[in-house]
Amino acid sequence: MMLNMKKIVLDCLGGDNGLPAMVGGALVALKQNPELQLVMVGDASVIKPQVEQFGDRVEIIDTKVNIAMDEHPTTAIRTKTDSSLVLGLEQLKTRDDCGAFVSAGSTGAVLTGGFMKIGRIPGVSRPALCPVMPTLIEGQEFMLLDAGANMDCTAVQLVQFAVMADAYKKAMGMEQPRVALLNVGTEETKGNEVVKTAHAMLIKLHNAGIINFVGNVEPDQVFKGSVDVVVADGFWGNVLLKTSEGMAKFVFKSLKSIIKSSFSAKIGALFLGRKLKKFKAEKMDKTNATIFLGLKKSVVKMHGNADARKVTSALQYAMTVVDLDLHQRIEQAIAKVETLLGENA
Amino acid sequence: MMLNMKKIVLDCLGGDNGLPAMVGGALVALKQNPELQLVMVGDASVIKPQVEQFGDRVEIIDTKVNIAMDEHPTTAIRTKTDSSLVLGLEQLKTRDDCGAFVSAGSTGAVLTGGFMKIGRIPGVSRPALCPVMPTLIEGQEFMLLDAGANMDCTAVQLVQFAVMADAYKKAMGMEQPRVALLNVGTEETKGNEVVKTAHAMLIKLHNAGIINFVGNVEPDQVFKGSVDVVVADGFWGNVLLKTSEGMAKFVFKSLKSIIKSSFSAKIGALFLGRKLKKFKAEKMDKTNATIFLGLKKSVVKMHGNADARKVTSALQYAMTVVDLDLHQRIEQAIAKVETLLGENA
Repeated sequence: MMLNMKKIVLDCLGGDNGLPAMVGGALVALKQNPELQLVMVGDASVIKPQVEQFGDRVEIIDTKVNIAMDEHPTTAIRTKTDSSLVLGLEQLKTRDDCGAFVSAGSTGAVLTGGFMKIGRIPGVSRPALCPVMPTLIEGQEFMLLDAGANMDCTAVQLVQFAVMADAYKKAMGMEQPRVALLNVGTEETKGNEVVKTAHAMLIKLHNAGIINFVGNVEPDQVFKGSVDVVVADGFWGNVLLKTSEGMAKFVFKSLKSIIKSSFSAKIGALFLGRKLKKFKAEKMDKTNATIFLGLKKSVVKMHGNADARKVTSALQYAMTVVDLDLHQRIEQAIAKVETLLGENA
Repeated sequence: MMLNMKKIVLDCLGGDNGLPAMVGGALVALKQNPELQLVMVGDASVIKPQVEQFGDRVEIIDTKVNIAMDEHPTTAIRTKTDSSLVLGLEQLKTRDDCGAFVSAGSTGAVLTGGFMKIGRIPGVSRPALCPVMPTLIEGQEFMLLDAGANMDCTAVQLVQFAVMADAYKKAMGMEQPRVALLNVGTEETKGNEVVKTAHAMLIKLHNAGIINFVGNVEPDQVFKGSVDVVVADGFWGNVLLKTSEGMAKFVFKSLKSIIKSSFSAKIGALFLGRKLKKFKAEKMDKTNATIFLGLKKSVVKMHGNADARKVTSALQYAMTVVDLDLHQRIEQAIAKVETLLGENA
């Protein structure tokens, strides 16, 4: 039991399901993890009666102000200074005993808020949104970055994404993370100009023994489990993320309508049902808790539609990253690479 | 019966399955379509005995030389002048009675060959690879372009893709094709610089009544059936295409292993089996026959692994495009837009 673990700040108002989901998920996480301490930001009159059982493991910051999903991120962060998102990020920023912030608020607002309130690690050009994606190999996932925070990335920014993800994976205990670059072909001559330049830089880092760069990976190969990190510009990364969501839904909805339309298929579905649900819940929800790498402290974004179960799992994820010293590790890794690329570029 | 339909040139050596698949697929297409006339390019000693029954509906250009899947496209097209791909494209280029060319050869070689041998329609900056993708709505598909032929597209090139696809869909009988721009959000302020500029230009064309531009579409929405054309840079388009292939495979392989691992799931699969196979064959093979828009004559690319059944369906697809006067329609549409963008850009 890590009794000195830093506290996790939970935005209890963000997301489609609001307080009931956030508080419900927090209660389960608190019960399952005796070392977990929370700073819950939201309506105290609702939260307090439910968390009294946990004594001083739970602190409450009282507010009823939420940033809605469709508000303009920068304007909302600037003007709604008493919102749960802004108040929560300020806790994370100013308090040494807080180590991570978790929210189901709009991606834009969480990113902008993290960027403006927490700030970048020195040397980091652009923080990146880093969802975890499933693969065919049991227990193996890959991290995709950037998945949509940054448009028009330069080659150096792509290389920084690779370095940040490598530092993260190593902090999580992986020895030689296999880092790949998203491209339309495996040969180094393939792709657009940015990706070709980034490829050459990553080869340098690989040859210098800094990163285990395994080369280009095509989008249809990422789910095979042969790479641990997939580096992309936020535009392509977002296309990958959303296409995979869209195609998964397409297949499941098509299966549903096949089952509905046929009696024998209905019987088949009865036998398959629970297994299918388990598969969807376990494999397809991988992207629920997404870390934003490159900030001075850990900001974790949940799906907007996160329910209590997903809130619990996002808090468990936050517990795994909260004491990893990601800030120091990434700062050092970026500095090391800057020297090398500066000398050789 | 359209007895004056132009002939279709079939590359009988390209692809993973070679002559047996190409000839097998051609035989079925010839039987099913009395108006179909073919120029078959490949080993005459194998082809001739099988097609004699069709008399002068089939012409053979004899060659045993194939361009392999891994050859460098430009070099192969330049040096292998007696290959089935080059000989076939030359038939298409030089003969007025030939209207389309169909090949399962490597995408790079077919694209490069089409570009070098057939040439672009006047005014077209970059021809585009245009696969057809499935949607949840029965009988409805969308065309994706560019799906990988062109990297680092400009906004004007994206607009040209929209115009070409619009002309194609109208030629196919659709009155107001819904043309969308692939983007990471629906708002016009979203995306990278190229996509924002293209968005503004497409709005102009929409307001001028030239194109039914329905705005940005996110990659998870394309399969819903609410758009007929999705415009993208070849890099993002290829990411969309390959991610959807990869995710579909991921889901099907995962289902397979669920079924393998459980007795009750196996029983379920027995009942569902045929329906599932039908779904995969009908919905997931949509991208088999892919037209290359912007060339002076129609070039159709099949999947490298096309079997006889897919060859038949690709020939049927070629029959639907062969007499559409795509060249004239696209040339006129591009010229019209050039004037408008020239005046207003």
